Formats: sequence, C-alpha cells, structure tokens
Amino acid sequence: MLKVTAVMGATGAVGTIIRELLEERHFPTQEIKFLASKRSAGTVLKYAGKDVVVEEATPEAFEGVDLVISSTPDEIAAEIVPEAVKHGCIVVDESAYFRMKEDVPLVIPEVNPDDVMKHKGIIASPNCSTTQMVQALQPLHAAGKLTHVNVCTYQATSGAGVGGNRDLMGASKAFLEGKEYQNEVFPHPIAFNVIPQIGSQKYRDTYPGYTSEEVKMIVETWKMLGDNTIKINPTCVRVPVANCHSEVISVETEKKITVAEAIELWKNTPGLVVMDDLDNGIYPMPCNCSGSNDTFIGRIREDVSRPNGLVFWCVSDNLRKGAATNAVQIAELLYQKIFS
Amino acid sequence: MLKVTAVMGATGAVGTIIRELLEERHFPTQEIKFLASKRSAGTVLKYAGKDVVVEEATPEAFEGVDLVISSTPDEIAAEIVPEAVKHGCIVVDESAYFRMKEDVPLVIPEVNPDDVMKHKGIIASPNCSTTQMVQALQPLHAAGKLTHVNVCTYQATSGAGVGGNRDLMGASKAFLEGKEYQNEVFPHPIAFNVIPQIGSQKYRDTYPGYTSEEVKMIVETWKMLGDNTIKINPTCVRVPVANCHSEVISVETEKKITVAEAIELWKNTPGLVVMDDLDNGIYPMPCNCSGSNDTFIGRIREDVSRPNGLVFWCVSDNLRKGAATNAVQIAELLYQKIFS
Repeated sequence: MLKVTAVMGATGAVGTIIRELLEERHFPTQEIKFLASKRSAGTVLKYAGKDVVVEEATPEAFEGVDLVISSTPDEIAAEIVPEAVKHGCIVVDESAYFRMKEDVPLVIPEVNPDDVMKHKGIIASPNCSTTQMVQALQPLHAAGKLTHVNVCTYQATSGAGVGGNRDLMGASKAFLEGKEYQNEVFPHPIAFNVIPQIGSQKYRDTYPGYTSEEVKMIVETWKMLGDNTIKINPTCVRVPVANCHSEVISVETEKKITVAEAIELWKNTPGLVVMDDLDNGIYPMPCNCSGSNDTFIGRIREDVSRPNGLVFWCVSDNLRKGAATNAVQIAELLYQKIFS
Repeated sequence: MLKVTAVMGATGAVGTIIRELLEERHFPTQEIKFLASKRSAGTVLKYAGKDVVVEEATPEAFEGVDLVISSTPDEIAAEIVPEAVKHGCIVVDESAYFRMKEDVPLVIPEVNPDDVMKHKGIIASPNCSTTQMVQALQPLHAAGKLTHVNVCTYQATSGAGVGGNRDLMGASKAFLEGKEYQNEVFPHPIAFNVIPQIGSQKYRDTYPGYTSEEVKMIVETWKMLGDNTIKINPTCVRVPVANCHSEVISVETEKKITVAEAIELWKNTPGLVVMDDLDNGIYPMPCNCSGSNDTFIGRIREDVSRPNGLVFWCVSDNLRKGAATNAVQIAELLYQKIFS
C-alpha cells in the first residue's frame, strides 16, 4: 500500500500536469505531498477536492514518503533526488541527470516495463523527444531489427519550461504590434523563426557538432531498446509552436517491414495512434494532438531512397507523454509491482 | 541588345521582388513592361523613377517583347507562356508547369549555367526548396559523388503566396486575442502549428505517400545535377515562419568529404555563405537570412550514423534565391549569352 506520494516540482509546467493526472487517474495513495522550491512554498493547491499546501523541498520533507515523482532542472535533481533516496523513497525522476547512470533504469512503460524493477531507488523518465520516437521505434525493432534511424525534430517551446511559452507568446504579440521583445530563455528570436539548436555541444568529444538534445536521442534510445548497434542521426530544431513535438523519422530495418505491416504493428501497440490519410489532409499536428496522452503517427510511407526503409511523422504532447504522463505511468507500474 | 523586357505576374509576391531586383541591379533593357491579370491591370508601379502602368497579360501584350520573366500559378503559366514563345519571346518561368519537360532547361546559374543555351523558348527556374538544397549539394556531388540525400524542410508561409502570410499573421493575431480565424490558403491552422503536407499526392503511382512538393525535390535535383542515380528522401513541412525555408540535409558521398573539406567547397561557391559556430549560437535562421540573395549553411557535422555522411542546416529566402533572384540571374545570364 502506498502511504505517502510526493510530487517534487509541483508548481512547474510538468508538475502541474502530474498533479492533474494523479487526480484524474485516481492514483492509489493515502496521502499526497506537493514539494517545490522555497519561492513556491506556502502556495495552496487543490487535490481531489482538498487544499494541499506546497512545502519546501528540504531533505526532511522526504521523511515518511514512499514514492516521489520529481520534475526539476538537472542541477536541482542532482542534489535533491539522492536525498530522497537516502530517506527511503523510490524516485521517478524527469530530469536528464540520472538517465544514463548504469544502476538507473530508464523506462517507458509500453516499451521496457520490466526494467523498472532493476532500480536502486531511482527510475528515470526519458527526454521528451526521445520518448515519442522510441514508442514508435520499439515495435519496428522487435519485428524487423532497426539498423538506422534519421530524425529531424520540430520541437515546441513548452519543452523549455513556462518561460519558453512566455517567450513565444510575448515575442509573437510584440512582433505583430511592431514592438521589441526581450527573451527570457531563448538565445534567438522565437516568434516566426526556427532555431536549429537545443542544448549545448557538451558531448563534443564523442559527438562533435551535435547538441546535447541530439545526443540524448541517440544514447537514451540505445538504453531503452537495449541495443547500441542501431545507427542514429538526430537534428533537433525549435519551432514557434507552444506545445507538442513533431518528428520526421526515417528508419531502416534488417528485415523489410511494409507500410501495411508497420501500421498493423503500431495499431496493436498501447499508447500509439495511427492517423494517416494524406488525401484527406489527415495526419497528426500539434493543433490536434495537444492535451492527449498518446503518441500519434502519420505520413507513413516506404522510403523511396532505401530498400528496407520507412518514413513517418510522429507527434506527441511533450509535457504529457514526453514528461508528466510517462512519469505517472512509471509510478503506476511501481504501484502494481511493489506497493499494491 | 535587349529592347523590351516584361515581368509577368508583376504585382505578386515574387513579381514585386523581381521588379526590385531588376531595378537594383540595373538590368540592361531599353524598356520594361509589367503584365498581370485583368484585375491588376491599370495599377501604376514605379520603376527607375518612372511610372509604369500594369497591362493585362493578353497574347498581344507580348508583341515586341524580347524577354519575359514570368511568375504565375502553374495553370496560368500553362496558357500564357506558350503564347509568349509564339510571339518570339524567351521566357524565364517560375512555375512548376514546364520544369520537367525535356526541351526546357531547369537552371540555377551557379549550378548549371550552360543548360540555359539548350532552351527552345522557355527556361524554368526550380522549386524554392529544391534550389537552396541543390546549391549546397552541387559542390559535394562534384567533389565526392552523392549517393544519398535525406532532407526535412521547415518551409515558410510566403511560399504559399501573399495569402499564406496573411493567414500566418491573421491567425496568430486572432489566436493571441482569443478569436477565430478563417484561413485563406492553408488546410489547417498555421498559427503555432506545423503542417506536414505541402502539395498533393498527385504522383502516387510512382511516389506513393509523397507529396508533389517532395517529388519536386527529387526529380528537379536529378535534372539539374544531371544524375538520377542519387537516392533522395524528402519530407516537406510548413512551419509558422513568414519567410525563408530551412532544411536539415543528410548526405552520403562515394568519396568521403570531411567537414573541413565541405566548408572549403562551400566557401568557394558563389551564392553560398557558411555561418557555423555552434558554441556561440551562430547558424543561419529565417530571422537572420530573410532579405538576402544568398543561401546559408550551418550546423555542419559528420553524420555519426554513416561512414561517408555529412549533415547540415540550410536556410535561404524562398522568395529571393528560391524564386525572384534565381529568375533574374537566369535573365542576366541570357543577356550575357544572347542579348549583349
């Protein structure tokens, strides 16, 4: 039985959706705790009809907590998550900080649910742009063994936090009124512009010219699919869209998979929705996928340029399946396997 | 000597830039004529300090004209361009209608200038998203023979004509004010959204699942590079950017080309500008390339996923080098080769 569940970073963009999802899905915990930075402590939030006062995330706040769902920047996670583990909590962590550590499972419940039990206190939830791609790749890999993946992303500003969306809307409004706008988070104008950089070149030694977001899409995919022989070439681009990441994914498989077979595989995979009728202008887009917990696939075709190639378009709500939904699903999995 | 040069479609988005460029570059013609649809006839436009009255583009209007630069929708071009040729004009045509005809050269002056002299009255200017890509590909192909190209586009609304930009700005303003907006040209919302379809599935027999814009990027590239053995896989996406198309291009060559070699090749190619310093956030974007006649390349790196692979990001003003500038450069080439 789960006595106390805590949401760490409860007032953030992802934390807000985590709270909604836990309530909506009647997450089986006797008590809920909302933790945040000192700045947000004292805020009163509703949960299942009751008022919950946000507490400051001090190490002592984890006393008596069974499970933590944590969504904070990497540098905060690096400090606070081990504190929670020390206090006996199991932590589902949204940050990138622990994802590639050997004793930390990186989990998408529809992809590698069994990995969850290998945890030593921390289970990491993957990068948003990686999650939706791996959901689409996994059934293809199981059926035909992936050899190569090329991916170009069209990433929403909500991926950069609430400041990202303030920049998009503020800058767009200013542009239309002929005014100047000072960005909070983006290094370049975001209104009516695209920025071909997400993250820094911090892995320049092994991946020269690639950004950290792009490297995440390689190494996290390998870890979750348990296969680092798949060749992956990502390019990550920020677009002036508030919410939902879109991706063009070209794959090659050892065994040929036809379009019809791929559609069948995806239709039979929980969490995936095929939306594909080009003649009638039907395909996923941010405008028709935002707010959903599923990942959507369209524009499915054989790659004319590769013998065993498929190309498709994949859209998912980056705050939901790309973050909050996946973390809550991991928490539900932990409940089933440990606490129920 | 060029006596009379006519701009057909002179009042359109591309026609406007053609007029500006001809004036700016002192195009050597004794007389200029502006032609348009009946609706725009009578409009008075300035050219080199003089008033020019727009005439209706009847067949008779081409009487005595030496050279026509024509920018109209395909269905208008299909009718009016042959009329102009019948009247003895040489026509530089922006439309897609004649591009793939065997006796019509398809020309980018920096790429295949000699093809211009193979004309039988019509010289076609390529599709905007193709032009910038082929500019970047040509030096690589010459140096190392391209075997494969994967391209994902981030295309501006100005590519859909002036109505495209009205939709983007109108819909964005309406969105920010919480109002509804009825699109003029796009089949889906364009404000804060991306649309993974440009064109129709009209080539479904040979390219099932690909749109006409994507097929143009294959066949026009083959025609201009004179090599249809290059495997090409394009995906074309409309983004909420007013002007400038951006592209992620992954290539493979028979002979390995290093990043340093590619940069050297591009730096020595007229019309190309390398803008590449990821650590300092320097790369081309719509916001810093709009209004230029050049094509810009950045994010250049070895493709970690392919032995002889390179990946890069390419941005160009789709109304300029992607349309007006290229057509005017073809006209200048014709002047040098025929009329001077």
